[in-house]
Amino acid sequence: MRVLLTIQYLGTNYHGWQIQPGKITVQGCLEQAIQKALGEQCETFVSGRTDAGVHAWAQCAHFDTNTRIAPDKIAYILNRFLPADIRVLKSQQVSDDFNARFDVTKKTYQYQFYASDQDLPLLDATFARVRTDFCFKKARHACKYFLGTHDFQSFCSTGRQTKTTVRTIYAITLDDLGESKYRLSVTGNGFLYNMVRIIAGTLIDVGCGLIESKDIPQIIKQCDRTKAGKTAQAKGLTLKQVEYDKVKLVPNTKRI
Amino acid sequence: MRVLLTIQYLGTNYHGWQIQPGKITVQGCLEQAIQKALGEQCETFVSGRTDAGVHAWAQCAHFDTNTRIAPDKIAYILNRFLPADIRVLKSQQVSDDFNARFDVTKKTYQYQFYASDQDLPLLDATFARVRTDFCFKKARHACKYFLGTHDFQSFCSTGRQTKTTVRTIYAITLDDLGESKYRLSVTGNGFLYNMVRIIAGTLIDVGCGLIESKDIPQIIKQCDRTKAGKTAQAKGLTLKQVEYDKVKLVPNTKRI
Repeated sequence: MRVLLTIQYLGTNYHGWQIQPGKITVQGCLEQAIQKALGEQCETFVSGRTDAGVHAWAQCAHFDTNTRIAPDKIAYILNRFLPADIRVLKSQQVSDDFNARFDVTKKTYQYQFYASDQDLPLLDATFARVRTDFCFKKARHACKYFLGTHDFQSFCSTGRQTKTTVRTIYAITLDDLGESKYRLSVTGNGFLYNMVRIIAGTLIDVGCGLIESKDIPQIIKQCDRTKAGKTAQAKGLTLKQVEYDKVKLVPNTKRI
Repeated sequence: MRVLLTIQYLGTNYHGWQIQPGKITVQGCLEQAIQKALGEQCETFVSGRTDAGVHAWAQCAHFDTNTRIAPDKIAYILNRFLPADIRVLKSQQVSDDFNARFDVTKKTYQYQFYASDQDLPLLDATFARVRTDFCFKKARHACKYFLGTHDFQSFCSTGRQTKTTVRTIYAITLDDLGESKYRLSVTGNGFLYNMVRIIAGTLIDVGCGLIESKDIPQIIKQCDRTKAGKTAQAKGLTLKQVEYDKVKLVPNTKRI
């Protein structure tokens, strides 16, 4: 059967999602846990990799297994073999043609940051730090330019191949959380390599007066990575939600 | 001169504030950093100790030094000798009769928790976990009974001596942060040993239906620790703010 896992992880101690020789990764830990828990070597297929230091509130990945354990119990068993900073929140059977990567319809990322002249240990794990002259209003004003369907090549790091650099952003909001803390939320049909971190970095540059808000449409049009802002630090980024149009759920046939 | 430090720390990796033989504590790290930075062995006096695993957004402590370094520069130098999870946010000269412990007029603590049937790695450092049947409205309704001046002996763990167990709570609020996350904020003129954690534990018990909201005045009156709720987990607690009526600041005489 094909099983879909919803996974939360604190990315701080991992070299990202994808298995890499000699490095500790989320996928590596997960596949080891599957082997220990189910006695099978299974390859997992994720909605999209996350980079080193990036977190996930609810990442999604599927794998195929011959286990007779009930699908909704797999989460519980996997957690016994996973480190505390990776938790399987849910496991469910899906139809055999479901694909955690290709069937994604929407993804939401959030980027958290705070303005301070020094590092704050209580925010350090999931917030990036920006300059104290960051202006929330300026940055918020600039969000609207990203909405809609655009070629986001200016907001894409090199290093990964994609058929097209056109993506659609359905929603983008910047919230003031108080105490100079801010949260950017972006929902789209898909994101290019580093796209959310470059959008965040560009909005932070707008807030700090390094980029003019009104220049953003032009930056998008130029399709040139060097025109956009910096790639914001990984630790502020969290994959918040992955949505599928119709996860063909298979009724839970009690096996255990 | 007497110097007042404002300190932020993530308590996760510390056996609390106070120096203890063979244990890593915040005070121990701070006094080591002072010795390395200023070349002097100085005793620090804190607004109040925090327990193992408890955090501080802005703890306050004073010490006396003969250094010729400008007081506002001391923070910067100390941070070079402190681990990343302890940061001195500010250093300022105060008058020689100022006392970080005895001159406190108000303290604010916050207690953060989330309702879930499993641990969530992204909240783990500064949130405690409670049962999923926790009812926010019930718990919030119960807050008001703690307001004002009471003998809080029912909300005090044994193990520390105090002249009186009477304390005044000026403000207490419970906020719904969304996604089943909650934050209790309590401001008072002082707190007994474990008092905020027992109030939090009692409100959580009210929210979970284990204690009736209307019984709280009676629980307070009984002056009996066994009548109140559980002591909530340390990791949810953060010392948020320490207030002094008049910190007699000494104008910064530029020495470096």
